Amino acid sequence: MARLETLKVAVVGAGKMGADHVRRIEEAVSGARVSAVVDVDAERAKAVAARVEGCTAHTDPAAAMAAADVDAVLVASPGPAHEAALLAAFARDLPVLCEKPLTPDAASALRVMEAERQLGHRRVQVGFMRRYDAEYMKLKSLLSTGQLGRPLMLHNRHRNVASPPGWTSEMLINDSVVHEMDVTRWLLGQEITAVTVLRPAPSANAPQAVQDPQFVVLETDGGAIVDVEIFVNCGFGYQVQAEVVCERGTARIGDGQAMVTTMAGRWGGTIAQDFTDRFADAYDREVQAWADATRRGQVTGPSVWDGYAVAAVCEAGVRSLAEGGRVEVELARRPALYDVS
Amino acid sequence: MARLETLKVAVVGAGKMGADHVRRIEEAVSGARVSAVVDVDAERAKAVAARVEGCTAHTDPAAAMAAADVDAVLVASPGPAHEAALLAAFARDLPVLCEKPLTPDAASALRVMEAERQLGHRRVQVGFMRRYDAEYMKLKSLLSTGQLGRPLMLHNRHRNVASPPGWTSEMLINDSVVHEMDVTRWLLGQEITAVTVLRPAPSANAPQAVQDPQFVVLETDGGAIVDVEIFVNCGFGYQVQAEVVCERGTARIGDGQAMVTTMAGRWGGTIAQDFTDRFADAYDREVQAWADATRRGQVTGPSVWDGYAVAAVCEAGVRSLAEGGRVEVELARRPALYDVS
Amino acid sequence: MARLETLKVAVVGAGKMGADHVRRIEEAVSGARVSAVVDVDAERAKAVAARVEGCTAHTDPAAAMAAADVDAVLVASPGPAHEAALLAAFARDLPVLCEKPLTPDAASALRVMEAERQLGHRRVQVGFMRRYDAEYMKLKSLLSTGQLGRPLMLHNRHRNVASPPGWTSEMLINDSVVHEMDVTRWLLGQEITAVTVLRPAPSANAPQAVQDPQFVVLETDGGAIVDVEIFVNCGFGYQVQAEVVCERGTARIGDGQAMVTTMAGRWGGTIAQDFTDRFADAYDREVQAWADATRRGQVTGPSVWDGYAVAAVCEAGVRSLAEGGRVEVELARRPALYDVS
Amino acid sequence: MARLETLKVAVVGAGKMGADHVRRIEEAVSGARVSAVVDVDAERAKAVAARVEGCTAHTDPAAAMAAADVDAVLVASPGPAHEAALLAAFARDLPVLCEKPLTPDAASALRVMEAERQLGHRRVQVGFMRRYDAEYMKLKSLLSTGQLGRPLMLHNRHRNVASPPGWTSEMLINDSVVHEMDVTRWLLGQEITAVTVLRPAPSANAPQAVQDPQFVVLETDGGAIVDVEIFVNCGFGYQVQAEVVCERGTARIGDGQAMVTTMAGRWGGTIAQDFTDRFADAYDREVQAWADATRRGQVTGPSVWDGYAVAAVCEAGVRSLAEGGRVEVELARRPALYDVS
Repeated sequence: MARLETLKVAVVGAGKMGADHVRRIEEAVSGARVSAVVDVDAERAKAVAARVEGCTAHTDPAAAMAAADVDAVLVASPGPAHEAALLAAFARDLPVLCEKPLTPDAASALRVMEAERQLGHRRVQVGFMRRYDAEYMKLKSLLSTGQLGRPLMLHNRHRNVASPPGWTSEMLINDSVVHEMDVTRWLLGQEITAVTVLRPAPSANAPQAVQDPQFVVLETDGGAIVDVEIFVNCGFGYQVQAEVVCERGTARIGDGQAMVTTMAGRWGGTIAQDFTDRFADAYDREVQAWADATRRGQVTGPSVWDGYAVAAVCEAGVRSLAEGGRVEVELARRPALYDVS
Repeated sequence: MARLETLKVAVVGAGKMGADHVRRIEEAVSGARVSAVVDVDAERAKAVAARVEGCTAHTDPAAAMAAADVDAVLVASPGPAHEAALLAAFARDLPVLCEKPLTPDAASALRVMEAERQLGHRRVQVGFMRRYDAEYMKLKSLLSTGQLGRPLMLHNRHRNVASPPGWTSEMLINDSVVHEMDVTRWLLGQEITAVTVLRPAPSANAPQAVQDPQFVVLETDGGAIVDVEIFVNCGFGYQVQAEVVCERGTARIGDGQAMVTTMAGRWGGTIAQDFTDRFADAYDREVQAWADATRRGQVTGPSVWDGYAVAAVCEAGVRSLAEGGRVEVELARRPALYDVS
Repeated sequence: MARLETLKVAVVGAGKMGADHVRRIEEAVSGARVSAVVDVDAERAKAVAARVEGCTAHTDPAAAMAAADVDAVLVASPGPAHEAALLAAFARDLPVLCEKPLTPDAASALRVMEAERQLGHRRVQVGFMRRYDAEYMKLKSLLSTGQLGRPLMLHNRHRNVASPPGWTSEMLINDSVVHEMDVTRWLLGQEITAVTVLRPAPSANAPQAVQDPQFVVLETDGGAIVDVEIFVNCGFGYQVQAEVVCERGTARIGDGQAMVTTMAGRWGGTIAQDFTDRFADAYDREVQAWADATRRGQVTGPSVWDGYAVAAVCEAGVRSLAEGGRVEVELARRPALYDVS
Repeated sequence: MARLETLKVAVVGAGKMGADHVRRIEEAVSGARVSAVVDVDAERAKAVAARVEGCTAHTDPAAAMAAADVDAVLVASPGPAHEAALLAAFARDLPVLCEKPLTPDAASALRVMEAERQLGHRRVQVGFMRRYDAEYMKLKSLLSTGQLGRPLMLHNRHRNVASPPGWTSEMLINDSVVHEMDVTRWLLGQEITAVTVLRPAPSANAPQAVQDPQFVVLETDGGAIVDVEIFVNCGFGYQVQAEVVCERGTARIGDGQAMVTTMAGRWGGTIAQDFTDRFADAYDREVQAWADATRRGQVTGPSVWDGYAVAAVCEAGVRSLAEGGRVEVELARRPALYDVS
């Protein structure tokens, strides 16, 4: 498990997404730190860089990448700026995490692909983050077991509360359904061969001239039919659902339940088999919370008083088990140190 | 957000739990690393320490804590060894994360409490990790809003597939229900005043002479009645459920669904309001996966081919939206670089 | 399937429950009709009897039972009047459906039992109607298969929106938990041997001096432990839930889902295997609605226009299937006869 | 509530569906009886008629309708025979319940419509029984409140375990999707204007040359887009689901849950407000079971012993409530009369 030193990352783009990635790398990611922040707006770059000790601010991606302490690049600038940033990273053979879209159109994406091909090895990971969602990962994993048989259809629902100002009908395809397009390819392992967009009567809550909702049908080279309801002014919440229909059963995620499968006369989900599975995240969160508080010079979480009080209740419980009947719990007086503020 | 340097942790106990915490700190926790591993078994300490670069191995907790590069201690040794380790940490005023139980009985817990009180400030966080479980945290958070009114009852189910060899009737209280005892105190903010343990006819699957299941009733100083079904040979899975019954509604976790509440004529759950909420974990996991792969010198995840292929599908989609009807997708030939192995 | 003639029923008690049973027999039950209505309040008896053609009104149960056209008796008078009505029915050897409670206390119930024993055969069905609830029936049926193993515990929740005026603490036992007492005996096939009633802090919404909620623990002669939460001022709805915990799994009803079982690492429910199962009730309801409308001289439900319109859509569908692409549906003009009013 | 005498029904068609309707009218429908059974196969007509007291058998529908004791007709013969039966009923102005399809094609359906129009009043109810399913009725009822706003899309799933021998690709439209066509028109109150049938790669479990599954898109004159997955060899069960997507929320049925709605940040369902709602069916079933047993000369269901035993438990419960602690239940000896066989 001997690991490399900490990965030093240049973040290109200090807008909402870029700033959030800076926070993420500092607070949630182990083994990485932000060493440089780049933005065409120098003030914005400085403001975000200032939040991280030892982090420098830049306006030119290539200059930032030339810094001695940059091992990798995270591109979160607007789509039209991606191509230049990617080529700059290729020039230094730096690994890149590039937010979606890779580039704004297929022609520029082809140019990037040709550049990477000439480099001779992959350097880019594109930010299709749904592939890292726990529910989608379970769905993919289940499909790969072959239990359900070959996938025949995939039904998707993608709903947002309300579209931001300036949102257009095309953006429902390019910024929203784009996720289902990648999910389709990834889940099914098939390429998409045709698209049909149907237009329901628009919702009264859609902005003027915006076709919302849309109902999109995708066909794949494996013969699957995929439908996507995209509805970005649904009003009630952000909801992403997917149901794969296979030859012997179905699996569905996103319903406010764990993954639900139907097969052999039953619907339902799985139950964890032990606590390391059920509470894996809780253990991670516990130790992270402890490390974070300790580094801030604080002590939080369950106290010695909690440990003591529970020990006293256990003793009463064991006596009740042995002797039967109700056993009262006797507690010492709680020291002021353990007062909850 | 300027943060302190990395927290250097001595892990006391290199058994299953200790080794898992070492792995956790190295792989999942940001801002911390393991600098020392302690175990009475020198070979075991060395084996675990060897997995971490620069980590030393020890057999004596106090000696390990004396090392220059120890900022904090994680105690994961057997319960009877906790008291000595905690006092050693107090001697150096080091912060401690101590696995549950704090100590094996109330008397020794009182001694630890007195020692921390004399230190004058809290140094210990006890490892009641359910307080860090996402579902319990939501339940606690909902209760604190007061929407449901005052809690009156708390129903708990705690089921394990099978008990390990050597498990006794008392261990159902001390090792299993102990979690619900802490959860009760934490969720309700009340101390437990009495315990009654009822004995259903034991399951045929329980080991000889083990009273399994048990049905435990707790009373609190706030007048709440709490019941706990503990069933450690249920056979079907590891399942932890809790339902709080309040004056105006109930909330339940652990059912294979998100938290379900009942209130004002409806049952159900909440829907995320935006993608940063719904996909927060996916973003963390994506960037972590990228950082991990990059440090290993690899490139994984969605490729430039994926970015290109989706761009081509989007273009077809926008044409279908504009013109109506079915639009075929034209893809370039995929370079061998992007072959999926 | 040659059946006996219609059963002629005397309904004793014309209050809310009795009147509802009169309506039920007339509208929902096949093969029975109400021939006599009895109430100590002559006006009330007459008013309810007047709703049924040929039905007579009485103030004395025995006199009503003496009428030539009475085959059976339904007792829905207040509990203290049950004993006399039952003995009158025994005198004429008439079958009786007696609303719960059989009688108000164990001593009077014993007297009724002795009278029926002397009659030499059973004549009485007691109105524990939960045994006829579809969900409880499924639960009972599943238990009887033995798939889950022996039942060890039964958890019950019984919640009402608000208690009626005059409701007392004792009525939570006698009028509410009484159902779970019967359910326990019926589901488990065991007698109850001990009762413990625990008193949580009363809800602020409970009437003055009423202990609500209560938490009741029952023990059975088969060694099962049964708990019942009774909460008659829960505010949010009427909710009845039951979970049986067996040696190899659990089954739960009343959650707004079909029966959910846990077993062998999975939670979930069953899926119907054919349409006669899934839509059995719909067929019954359809034919009943048609018979009812026809007897009123009306025609309701799907019309010839509906049949025609669907036929036209089918033709378009079959053409699309054969030829591919979108096929428009051509409909004739709809005659005024089929205008929806 | 004074009702007409019993409706006397001639059932035309004594095959599987017809025989089931005969059973239904006799056993489950109140206020109706079968007076005549018609089938081209005289033996089959006789066999089914023999199950009902006083019921006659016929081979000619018109002859059967001419009988003195026929008030109404239920047509359950094969589709091609419907037109003649309907016209015979029109000749005598008899009300008809006609199984779907009304007739096998649009042209013949138009002829029937013209005949009924000339009659001057509606006489036919077509057997689209989904309109009588409890879940669909709730969905329709919710839509009619307007709470969710205008419907924009309707997603349907229709799955059968396996198709019968001889099933063709066209029958997926004519015999299966036909239900969703009617449901669409009824739920939305709109006519269907176009149909597109898409062909996923057929399942390996579909019979040779049968296109299964199919994905059907319907467009309506109200601008709604409706999709139907029809999959008649899904293997796992018979499943019918529908989700309506409206301007302010969605509602879904058929998931093994009660109707689930999403609206204003929440998903979930309603909770009954009182026992007459929750247990309405149980009461109907209880009284029907009692009437049926009584007419057979039997006594079933909860006995006087059950009434007595519960009374004794209640007494113990009330004592525990008053005095605290555990109270044992004393039962008399159970007379042999109440032994469960």
